[in-house]
This record gives sequence, C-alpha cells and structure tokens, in this order.
Amino acid sequence: MKRFLSAILVVAALVVVSAQPARRRVTLIVTGGTVLTQDAAHRILTPGAVAINNTDIVDVDTPANIAAKYQAAETIDARDQIVLPGLVNTHSHAPMVMYRGLADDLALMDWLNKYIFPAEAKTVSPELVRVGTRLAAVEMIESGTTAYADMYYFEEEIAKATFEAGLRGVLGETVIQFPVADAKTPAEALVRAERFIKEFKDNGLIVPAVAPHALYTNDTATLVASAELARKYNVPMLIHFAETEDEVRVAREKYNMTPTAYLDSIGVLGKTTIGAHGVWVNDADIAILKARGVGVAHNPESNMKLASGAAPVTKYLAAGVKLGLGTDGAASNNDLDMFEAMRQASFLAKHATHDPTAVKAQDALDMATMGGARVLGMEKTIGSLEVGKHADLITVSMRAARQTPMYDPVSHLVYVTRGDDVRTTIVNGKILMKDRQLKTLDRAAVIADANRLAARVRAAVAR
Amino acid sequence: MKRFLSAILVVAALVVVSAQPARRRVTLIVTGGTVLTQDAAHRILTPGAVAINNTDIVDVDTPANIAAKYQAAETIDARDQIVLPGLVNTHSHAPMVMYRGLADDLALMDWLNKYIFPAEAKTVSPELVRVGTRLAAVEMIESGTTAYADMYYFEEEIAKATFEAGLRGVLGETVIQFPVADAKTPAEALVRAERFIKEFKDNGLIVPAVAPHALYTNDTATLVASAELARKYNVPMLIHFAETEDEVRVAREKYNMTPTAYLDSIGVLGKTTIGAHGVWVNDADIAILKARGVGVAHNPESNMKLASGAAPVTKYLAAGVKLGLGTDGAASNNDLDMFEAMRQASFLAKHATHDPTAVKAQDALDMATMGGARVLGMEKTIGSLEVGKHADLITVSMRAARQTPMYDPVSHLVYVTRGDDVRTTIVNGKILMKDRQLKTLDRAAVIADANRLAARVRAAVAR
Repeated sequence: MKRFLSAILVVAALVVVSAQPARRRVTLIVTGGTVLTQDAAHRILTPGAVAINNTDIVDVDTPANIAAKYQAAETIDARDQIVLPGLVNTHSHAPMVMYRGLADDLALMDWLNKYIFPAEAKTVSPELVRVGTRLAAVEMIESGTTAYADMYYFEEEIAKATFEAGLRGVLGETVIQFPVADAKTPAEALVRAERFIKEFKDNGLIVPAVAPHALYTNDTATLVASAELARKYNVPMLIHFAETEDEVRVAREKYNMTPTAYLDSIGVLGKTTIGAHGVWVNDADIAILKARGVGVAHNPESNMKLASGAAPVTKYLAAGVKLGLGTDGAASNNDLDMFEAMRQASFLAKHATHDPTAVKAQDALDMATMGGARVLGMEKTIGSLEVGKHADLITVSMRAARQTPMYDPVSHLVYVTRGDDVRTTIVNGKILMKDRQLKTLDRAAVIADANRLAARVRAAVAR
Repeated sequence: MKRFLSAILVVAALVVVSAQPARRRVTLIVTGGTVLTQDAAHRILTPGAVAINNTDIVDVDTPANIAAKYQAAETIDARDQIVLPGLVNTHSHAPMVMYRGLADDLALMDWLNKYIFPAEAKTVSPELVRVGTRLAAVEMIESGTTAYADMYYFEEEIAKATFEAGLRGVLGETVIQFPVADAKTPAEALVRAERFIKEFKDNGLIVPAVAPHALYTNDTATLVASAELARKYNVPMLIHFAETEDEVRVAREKYNMTPTAYLDSIGVLGKTTIGAHGVWVNDADIAILKARGVGVAHNPESNMKLASGAAPVTKYLAAGVKLGLGTDGAASNNDLDMFEAMRQASFLAKHATHDPTAVKAQDALDMATMGGARVLGMEKTIGSLEVGKHADLITVSMRAARQTPMYDPVSHLVYVTRGDDVRTTIVNGKILMKDRQLKTLDRAAVIADANRLAARVRAAVAR
C-alpha cells in the first residue's frame, strides 16, 4: 500500500513537471530583494526579481513568477537588500582621485593655481590617468555607480580603463586654450579628440565625446570648433558652465551676456550637450537650456565645498530641464559616492529654497537614475529596470543599525545609505562586484599602484 | 670560537634585558596608528601609541617608547588606522531612531503634527525608549561617538541603557507644557526630573540634566523652575533655542525680544546651559551666549533637512562661543553619524558664507571633539588624547578606495570617512567595539527588538 502510494506520487510529480512550460534559459536572475524599478510609475516590487539575458533585462516580476518562467545560469540572492538601477554620475574627472585631499579649504583660484594646476603640470601622464581611472573605477563599482560622464586629459587611457573595468562611460577629451599635459594647443587637443572619437565610436560601453573645458578657458573659435566636431560625429559635448559668480562676471564683461546666453549665441548648445554645474542661471537661461534640450549635471557637494553657490534645482525640475547628479572630481568633493550626492542634493535644495518639501527623497533618486540617463542621452537604454533596457543594476544592503527600522526604502536610500552598503554591481548584464568582491579589477594592485604614484604627487607639490 | 661568541651574545642580551627598568603594567595599549591627539597644539604622531590604565590615558608617545615603558593586559593594533578622541554628539533624542524615515520632506509643523507627535503619543513607552536607546547606542558605538547629550521622555530608561552600553551621556529629562507620555504637566515633569537627577547624580558615565524643551513649548514659570532645579543640583540644562525663523517671530510677538535675549532676561542661561541649534541669532545674541558661557550644539544636517537655516558658525568661532556638533534625533537627519555632521558643518558654513576657507577640516574635527567636550562641560576630562584624561578614543580604518591615496589624515576624516570605517570604540578605558564586534550589546537582539516595535509605530501612523 505504502509502495503503491509512493509510485502514484512519483507519477503525479512527473505530470506536474512535464505540465510546466519549458523555462527559458537566461544568464542571470537577481531575486528576493525590494525592487525599485524607477519606471514612470515608480513601481516597487516587495519582493521582486529581475531576469537578465546577456546584456539586457528580459523580465521584472515576483520571485515566484521569475522562478517559474526562467532558468538562470547564475542567481543572486538579494534578500534584505534593495535592487535598483545603477547610479549615473553625470560629471567627474575620474583620475583626479589621485589629488583628493591634496589641498582643501582654499579659495577656488588658490586651490587651482597653487595646488591642482602645478600638481597636474608635473604629474599628469598616461600612467597617472590609467592608474587614477582604475582607482576611480574601484570606488564607483564599490559605491553603485554604473555609468559616468568624464572630462580629463589622455581620455583614451580613461576609456580603456573604463572598458576593462566594465563600466559605462560618456568620456570627453578636454579641449582647453592653454598648454596641458596631452596637448600644447586647442588645435592639437581637437586633433586628439577626433582621433579619440574614431577609436571608441563603436564601443558598446564607451561613448566618446568632446569636452571644451569652459567659456572662461576657451575662446569662441575653440568652443565653436569643439561643437562642430561633436556634431560631425554625432557625439556628446561636455562643458562646465555657470559654475561661479565670477564666471558670470567674466561673461558679462567680455560678451555682455550670461554664460548660458553666450554659449547659446555661438550655437554650441544642443540635445547632446552635457553642461556641468549650471549654478548661476536666471529664468531666461533656464528657458534656453530647456529649449535646446541641454542636460545639466548638478554637483551639490562640489558646489558647497568650493562655495560656488546652489543651483536652482527646483526651477530646473519645474521647467522640465534634463537634470542629473554628479560628484565632480574627487579633488573637490572628495569622493565619488553618488549616495552622498543624492543626500546633498536634497539637503542643499531644502536649505537654499527654505522649503523642507523641496527635492524629496524620490526626486533625488530620480535624478541619480533616470535623470542621469536622460542627461547622458541614454534614457531608452538605462536608468530604470524595464524589459528591453540594458541590465545596469545594483543591490544595496539594508541591515545596518542606521538603516533600522525601515519604513520607506526610498527614504533610506537617500538619507541613511552609504556607497559601502552596495553589495552587487552589474553593468550590461555583467557582474562587476558580488558580495563586495570585485570581478574585473585587482583591488590590491590598483591601491598599491595609486599609493606608489601618490608619492610623486606629494613630491610635486612639496617642491 | 663560535660557541664562545654565542655565549657572549646570550650574556649581553641578558644584561640588556635586566638593565631595562621594569615596565609599568597597564590595562590597554592602542599602537601603530596615526594618532591625532587633538591637544592644544594639534600634535600628530605618525605612528603613535596610547597607553591606558583602567579609565584613564597614562601616556601618548611613539609605539617604541610605549612598548619600552609599559606592559599591557591587552593591545590593539591600529596600523593603517587613525587614532583620535571619541566623537562628542552634543544634541540628540536617542530613542527617535525608532521614527527615522517614518516621514520626510515635510514642513516642520506638518511633520510634527501629522506624524511625529501622533506616533509619539501612541507609542512612546519605557519599552520603546529602552529599545530605541539600545539601537541608538549600537549606531553610536559603530560610528565612533563616545559621549552624547540627549533630551527625551523616560530619560531614566535612556540613562540605564546608555550606562549598560558603556557610553558617556549628558541626559536631560524633558520638561514641556503639554501632556506627554511620561508627565501630564510640567510640574510632574519637574518632579520626574528631580528624581532622575538624584538617581544618576553620582554615576561615573551619566550626567543627569534638566531639559526644558524650548521657549515656545514652555511658559516663563516652567523655564525658570527648570533652571532653578538645574542650579540646585549643579547639573546642566538642555534646551532648544533659536532653531527657526518662526521661533524668532513668536519671541518677538510675545516678549518683544529675540529668543536668546528673552532666555537671558529670565536668567536661565549660564555656564552649564547647552543650547541646541542657535541658528537665528544676531551679534548681540552671540555676545550674550559668550558672556554667559552657554554651549551651543550645531546640527547642520537637521537644520538643512528641515530647512531651518544656517547657524552663524564662523561668527560663533570668532567670538569664542563654546561650539559643538550634533546630529539631532534620527527622525530629522536620519542617522547619528558624526562624520556626516563634521562634513556637513564644513560644507554648510562654506556655502552659507560664500567662503571655501570657512570651517576647515581641522575646525570641523575640533568641534566634534574638544568643542563638544567644552559644550558638555567635560573639557578637562575628555575631547583630546592627553595624559590624565579619560580614555575615550576610537580607531578608524583608512583602507577604502575612497580614502586612497591619503595626503592628509584630517582632510580624510572629515571629507571621505564614514562612521562605518570606525574599527574600535573605547569609552572610559573600556572597549565597546573591537574590529567592529560589539562588546556590550547583543546586536542581533537589539535589531530584532527594534523591528518588532517598528511594526507598532507603523500601525500607529497608518490610519
């Protein structure tokens, strides 16, 4: 009787299994966490799961439904974690991690002229850029940044290191009027920039770009030539603009216009322009930025530390200007942690507008995800967890005492979470970090290389 | 010959050993780290060591000298770490960790009246206060705070939990005009406060205090009675003051004075007054605070998140007002991390004064250590690593990618370090955390208790 019953159960089980439709094979499933999709409806699955095949998201559903539909080569358990789109850093100078903390608490021009420019003049080299970018990549992967915009020198070294690390980047070769480490003249820089664009134009992770430094460091001809180069290859143009009150003064004296109006008057602003800072803009400037489709990179920490001012974030949002968050280079922040950028964006906007309802936690998270994706021109491919988008996502632990209890995952991500809480970082479907173990970079070697070169930097400023 | 030489070497070694003076026995040595003494000269030992016997620091010297002079029951290896005085949080409401993230991004009065006050009315109990304080203690120990000032209800539960955790506290029983969980009237609260003071007056770690909530929540008689009670027992008085522009309006309407001038006019300000916020003060107010010897607790994160304004930190420092940093309660911050408070104090001051040289990293660190000690009236016993002071100190890891490279330890502590980088926390010579393992609290039980009570809090605000 017992034997007979067993036989029936086995047969029944086989019937159940064979009745199941065949599960689709996928490369990766992330399951069990609170999934913040950051889609248009801000859908949250508690818990949820994300199915990934190769580079793309193929499904977002409950863990049970995903398990029923898919069979994965690898599964990541995200219980007690929040799963969200990877963070997008819209403004940085990655290799400047090599100068972090070298000089702080100085007026901008003292800081640049006495420390940063001399240190750069003596130490910027392909090697320093390579080593610095690797260090920045470790920091970005460890703190949940999956895509970033960059402008620096020897940008091809940055592109190579970024690609090897597995990060997504919009990387702009700097064009500047005075002689720098990789170009003696802006003409030379433009030649470098064109070569750089051609080299990386069809790279799946890297979008090459042109980066005229700013209006106060380039003449009109150079700015126009930079914009033309970007248009010729249909690549983004990155530029600093309206960062300080002094820049407004310079623009008014030289051109009798605001920085924004001047840049618009020479025809360099457009849908693929990424403008960093945008602190000192008036309502007419905001209207220009909206009309041209310029993406603005807001850097609250750098703006506070250098006392540049507070960008009118609530006005940008109300006007519908594309708005993302950035850390700026680590020499003026002093790190690349986008969780700090989110928190500071919220705090600074509340303070500056005298309104505690300004830039709510959800607004800050939106800026760091979909907002950043829009600024980089990637809103159709990254920035949210939706079917068909690239699989750029992170999982974040919520087990710290400072995260206990949790009433609202979005509040916790913005107000009490640190980059160090990130457990898993995935870009383009590839795991770059799992349980805080890096997969694409040799952490110890990167840190050792950075410390070795830091001795040279220290010597350079010690003179 | 070889044998003869060996014998000579052995004899020589014995002579050396016996020639050494006997090493003094001590309970603990922390050695090998970069020691920031935070003494008047800001002496830094690279590397250094601290010798501790029972509750006190007996020596600060090089590792070799300390090893030669002392024999320790326990030694902590602090290589690759910074050793510094424990951080002093001069304003908090510890149990409010139970309400963190319950409601954010609201106007102050909506936040209080719709969420915090209803949640408190329904859920504040000795149990919630006990569990919340334990959770706060875990968070403080894990993020390097060794002493804190607090004002809340059922303060005796906070005192017991703080003492058990091994933290140092200046703890004030709240006196407020309207009925609250632990007192129906201010008279009842004053009776509770007196009982509380008597119970904890001679505790080595706890300094009991009276905490009239604010001038806008107490009438003049209650404020005066609170100050008289503090004077009677020679204990501190804690009070919120000049936090918002609205408070200035109320004081002007009711008393035709600023909040500071009014509090001074009724004789409640003195050397043992700890005033939280002090955002809206004019030059005459600052002169009053300096003349009376009032200690001010600056809470940059809370002030920004609630859009209260920016305290005139540089003016306070110039005037020589005792100035410390605080996190405020975690419901308005949302955590108790003093590293965030330091960074924010620096950033906010630079922003508010349009001066990037304002509140340098060293200034922020001074506020969080000696400044806080002065505010708590403990400048002779804590706040720096000096012989004869209590052994309240922490060790902080400097191995993160975001801390690489390190040119300046003070810059790194303020601009790139998180509470989670703290490895060791020692209070009164006792190790509360070693290698991030808590010694006085059962972490899992504390977190479980907090999550259990959080369900009640969630239910209380649900309708």
